This record gives sequence, C-alpha cells and structure tokens, in this order.
Amino acid sequence: MAVGYQGLPRLHPVAGIEVATLCAGIKTPGRRDLVLFSLQPGSRVAAVFTRNAFCAAPVVVAKEHLAQGAPRYLLINTGNANAGTGESGLRDAHESCVQLATVMQCNAEEVLPFSTGVIGEPLPMQKLLEALPGFPSVLESDGWEDAAHGIMTTDTVAKGVSRQLELDGKTITITGISKGSGMIRPDMATMLAYVATDAALEQPLLQQCLNDAVKYSFNRITVDGDTSTNDSCVLMASGQSGLTIEEGSDNYTRFAETMMEVCQQLAQLIVRDGEGATKFIAIEVNGGRDELECEQVAYTIAHSPLVKTALFASDPNWGRILAAVGRAGIIDFDLEALTIYLGDVCIVSGGGRAADYREELGQAVMDRDEITIRVELARGKARAVLWTCDFSYDYVRINAEYRT
Amino acid sequence: MAVGYQGLPRLHPVAGIEVATLCAGIKTPGRRDLVLFSLQPGSRVAAVFTRNAFCAAPVVVAKEHLAQGAPRYLLINTGNANAGTGESGLRDAHESCVQLATVMQCNAEEVLPFSTGVIGEPLPMQKLLEALPGFPSVLESDGWEDAAHGIMTTDTVAKGVSRQLELDGKTITITGISKGSGMIRPDMATMLAYVATDAALEQPLLQQCLNDAVKYSFNRITVDGDTSTNDSCVLMASGQSGLTIEEGSDNYTRFAETMMEVCQQLAQLIVRDGEGATKFIAIEVNGGRDELECEQVAYTIAHSPLVKTALFASDPNWGRILAAVGRAGIIDFDLEALTIYLGDVCIVSGGGRAADYREELGQAVMDRDEITIRVELARGKARAVLWTCDFSYDYVRINAEYRT
Repeated sequence: MAVGYQGLPRLHPVAGIEVATLCAGIKTPGRRDLVLFSLQPGSRVAAVFTRNAFCAAPVVVAKEHLAQGAPRYLLINTGNANAGTGESGLRDAHESCVQLATVMQCNAEEVLPFSTGVIGEPLPMQKLLEALPGFPSVLESDGWEDAAHGIMTTDTVAKGVSRQLELDGKTITITGISKGSGMIRPDMATMLAYVATDAALEQPLLQQCLNDAVKYSFNRITVDGDTSTNDSCVLMASGQSGLTIEEGSDNYTRFAETMMEVCQQLAQLIVRDGEGATKFIAIEVNGGRDELECEQVAYTIAHSPLVKTALFASDPNWGRILAAVGRAGIIDFDLEALTIYLGDVCIVSGGGRAADYREELGQAVMDRDEITIRVELARGKARAVLWTCDFSYDYVRINAEYRT
Repeated sequence: MAVGYQGLPRLHPVAGIEVATLCAGIKTPGRRDLVLFSLQPGSRVAAVFTRNAFCAAPVVVAKEHLAQGAPRYLLINTGNANAGTGESGLRDAHESCVQLATVMQCNAEEVLPFSTGVIGEPLPMQKLLEALPGFPSVLESDGWEDAAHGIMTTDTVAKGVSRQLELDGKTITITGISKGSGMIRPDMATMLAYVATDAALEQPLLQQCLNDAVKYSFNRITVDGDTSTNDSCVLMASGQSGLTIEEGSDNYTRFAETMMEVCQQLAQLIVRDGEGATKFIAIEVNGGRDELECEQVAYTIAHSPLVKTALFASDPNWGRILAAVGRAGIIDFDLEALTIYLGDVCIVSGGGRAADYREELGQAVMDRDEITIRVELARGKARAVLWTCDFSYDYVRINAEYRT
C-alpha cells in the first residue's frame, strides 16, 4: 500500500474533455487497460517526453503527430510498452492511430498514442483494434477515476489530483492522473501523466507552464534511478471555461502555482507507491553554489542502495548519508561547514557526527513513515528538493517476478 | 558463498615482508581483526586512496605519513572505519601509529594506519592499544592467509591471489589480499587491498605500476555504486629478490602484466563476494568513441536496480538492459547500429529485439552463474570492461540488518 495514501479524491470533470476506459485484455483479461481522452475542437495540448535515447514507438509517433497540429484524441494502453520493438512497433503505433481515427472520424495525425508495460514484446494489435469501436458509447466527462485505474501497471493505487481556483469570477478546474511505480527517474516527464484544464492558454504558454511544473515535480522524483523508455506527460487546455490566461498576468501566476501543486502531488504519489516502498523521503539540499550541484548531492543520496536499505530498516545509519554526500562529486568541498539533518535532528557537523547527536534522536525520526533528509552545503544560495522512497525486500521481489 | 569461489590458494611468502594477525575484540570478541605488515628497510611503497570527499581519518594520516618517507609498517583494523569521526578520529589514528612505533621501535611517521568497518563510531582505542604489544612475537613471512581473514568485514570468504614469474633467472613473487563486499564502487582503489613483491622498483615506477593496475581492476568493479570513505590499495616492494625492474624494460612489461592479473583477480573476488551476490557479471562495452563513454554505458547497466534484479531472477528481460543503455547519456546515438549480446546470444539489433532472438536462448545464458553482457556501440574503437553482481533479497537483508 502506498505510503500515506489517502485514497483517490473527487476528480472534477474538465469541460471540453471526455474520458473513456475499456478492457481490451492486452495483458490480463478483464483488466481496464485502454483509455481514451477526447478533446473538443480548439483545445491546445502541450507535452514532454522521455529523454531516454531508446524512446518507445508511441513516443516517436506522438511527437510526430503533435508537431502537425492540435490533437483531438489521446489513446493509452497499459500492459505493453511497445518499446524496443523496432520498425514493426512503429507500424503498430501508427496503425492504432489510423484505426481510432476511423472510429472517431478524425485524421490519424489528430491521435497521440501512449503505451506502458513490458518492454520488448509486440503490441497485441488484434485485441487493441477490436476494442476501439467500443469507445464512442462510453466517453463521458466524469470518466477520470476509471482512467486513473486504466493506466496502472505495477502501481498498487490509482493516482489523481484535482483543484479548482477562482480567476476573474470564473471557476477554473485542473484535474490530472498519473501512473508509475518502478523504472522511475523521469528525465523531462514521468511514466505517464495527463493533466487537463478548462482554461484557455496559447500553445507556447501552455508548453512553458508544463515545462516549469514538470521541472520541479516529475523531474524531481526517483524510485530506482531507471529512466523509462515511455515517459510522457501531457497538459490539455480545452478553453471551455471561457477564460483566457495571458502570459505575465496575475491569473497566469496563480494558474501556474496550482499547476505546480497538481504536478508535485501527482509525482509524489508515484514515489509513495514506489515499488516496495515503505517510506516517503524528501531530500532537501540547501546552500549550494548552483542548483545542479544541489541536485547532484540529492540524487546521490536518493540512489544510494545503502541509504535506501537503511531507511527501510529504520536505521539512523547517518554514516551512509555522509559517505553518499562525499562521493557526489562536489568540487572544493568544505567538510567542516557542512551540516546534515534527519528531520529536525542535526546528525553531522564539524566534519563528523554532531556533538550533541544521540542515537535515540535519530531513531525517533527514522521510525516515521515520512522522513526529510536535509543537507546544508553552506557555500551558496541554491537549493533543490526531490522525493524518493526506501528500498525493501519487496522491490527485489516485484522486479524479480515481474515477467513471471 | 561467493560466486565461483575456489578457496584461498597458497599465498607465497614475499621475502622481506612479514605479516601478523591478532584478535583485539574491536567489534566481535575472538575475531581476527588487527593485521600488521612489517617491511624490511629499503622497501618501497605505493598507494592509492578513496576519492570520497569524506575520507576517513586513517586515510588522511596514511597520506601524510606516506609523503614523509618510506613506511616500515602497515597497521590495519577491521570492525570500525574511524570515518566521520572528526578531530577525535584523527587523534585516534595518530595515536595508534605512535603506540605501534613504540612497540616496534620506529618513528610514528613510518606507520600507515588503515581501518574498515562501521562508519561514524569512535575507534575503540583501549582494545586496539592493548593488543599492539602482541605483534612482535607473531610476525612471520607466512602470515598472509591469516591476514586475509583478519581484514574481512561483511565478506563471506577470504580473498587472496599469489603469482610467481621468472625474470632474468630469478623467481619473483607477487602476493596480495583484499577485502570488500558492500559499499563497493571504488574510485582510485577498493575497500582495502595489500599487494607485495620481492622485486625492486623505484618509487615513481612502483606508483605507476599500481595506478595502471588499479585503473582496470579495482576501479572497474561495482557492487552497489557506493564509494567507501576508507578505500585504500597498497603495493609494497621489498627488493629482497635482488632483481631491480627498470622502467621501459621487458621485465617491467611482464611484471606489470602479472600485477594487473593479480589486481583483477583480487577485484573480481570482491564482486564474487558482493553482498547477497548470486551471479558474477562481466559488462563489456566495445566500439565507443572514447573509453569514458564506454565506461558510462557499462556503469549505467551495472548500477541499474532493474537489470540487477532481473539477473538475480535469471530473467532474460533484455528490455531493461536496452533502457539502461538508452539513459546512459551518449550523444548522437545511432540506435540502429547498436547490438547487445547476452553471452553469445544477440538480443538487440536494428533498434529492437534481434530478429532471430528466442526467449529460450536468453534463458539458457541467464541460468548460468557467470554471465557476460556485451554492448557493441559501433561508433569507434574504444572499449571498457567492468565486473559486477546481481541484486538479491540478501543484499537488502544484509544492509537492513548491518548494525543490529
């Protein structure tokens, strides 16, 4: 069960966006595994994709189609990633867009395809194509909860966030869903996330808003350091609220803040549901010369199997945190100035264990489900925060048994 | 039990070097935990140390002493790393040299101290100092096997390699021992390794020989990506064989080759005994533009928890290897030209699963204890090989229970 998971909140419909979920039997019979987003004409779409050099076939096709104009449909399957599938994988991704376009009476280029699941196996095209004609009759504006289930793979819980804010007397909705649990160290996006709003934003501003939010949300989480071939994050703006948000306006500031909040929560839900996770860890690095070195220290701690297993064991083995900081590659490091905190407890100062540190103080923090590790580099003003989880027997079990 | 471990071979004595091992009760009563190397006057010593910014107190002191002249004694304790211990840790490391110098009637600067074990706890000085007077009566040239046991921490087997070669009609001996099992991604050296020869080499050449050997041995292994605070590797040359090895000579070439072989075997023994290891993995990356990008790809595969858990499960989940290669940060990557082999089986070519790949072929390789993953980048002539192990339940167990 995901750490601190509160259940799926009410996911407000977004005017102009309809959602449908089907069971196509792609990997497991009877499981919801095929999701369709339908966007009213005039909607704008921004997206970010994985930077893994081996991006999956649907990522290639989605990028091509996005470059050709505003999409009308997002087609997502789980159970198979259609990655590492070469030319035939590209044909399959194209073909699913063509067939959906026939069903929905649009152009194939107006469809963006997304896949997630096992890498390197051919997409079961027959099952997928046979299911597509079922979509029109089940599209509904209130279909988000089903869709949150329909994009899950090894996720143990469905992930969704919804916010409403008042701008110029109008209620603006932002609703999003995400999935992901392992192979999580997004680089430009997470496994899969879909966020929609009924505000109107010009496409470049929409893309900027997404980039800014992703940078400090999906790009600041890691479960195991493995960047997926299929990472995609999409922001849809239907404009149906009647409110247009202009660049540089107060409305944009407030909208972007809410968007950041939605993305951070969706990203944190992925870490809370990290494969085998028993703890939710925030790593905060302050006082760096630049953001990059703060990130470097934070990721080195977050990826250390020794730190992660100590967190699993609730063992305040602060020496492992110190060793990780020490190998993070920081130039001209003043070890004397460094301090490290576990929650509010100072564990390292003056180049070693803090003078007034006692094991029971560290133990009390370690016994919690949610822990903050804070590193103060004391050499500048930059900072970085990221979120990760511990490393348990269940991570090994889940990934040793994944294909069996 | 270490993968493919054949037992400790006969460790030939090295003329001019004596070894002693004691039980000081530093962590566990009755366990061999204190080792002394004694070098005849005229011996030369080369060493490499961790690049972790937090190097342990004994590393700081050993570097200082080494800069002041040829050492006569190497004092090694296990059970406590004396790392992250600040000023008092430095005082303890100094004091142990001073006290040993009194017992052995030499200068304190002629003693190099080394420690390995838990980080961040004070060295139990009383136990250590009380044991020192026991050394003179137990020093012997044939003490290597005991010492191999005396430097172990979470190691399950003692590690030693010994070679003899004929040069100019003289028999030259190279004997070495190493320890290490977790927190292994040496950066300039491994946890601890001590190699000695009776050949004579000038100090700069001895250092060069060590640097070259370490580069492709201890610096090419990883268990968990965590670089220790205490990594040290020492090469001692007593010169007692009467043979002097000159720079650029054929003798040097043959000596350096044997030295490389000894270091590679000592390094590989660490990986074979990696915490929880059930498989020994060689990762070979060929055809890179430079060695650095080959290393980058090899380490990305070697550190991927998803690849490591698939290896543990004997699951030919080649998609995870491909995803790791894809996130290794290679610029202008031609995915079509890339091929990946599991043993002799081609698993990836033409941007996806190799056309004639069948699961049972991959499975047959995965079922072995020793596996080679070979990546052909096909964009240059550089190559890199490194060695690692899989990631099992036992890795988590060992590191979750380490301090309990």
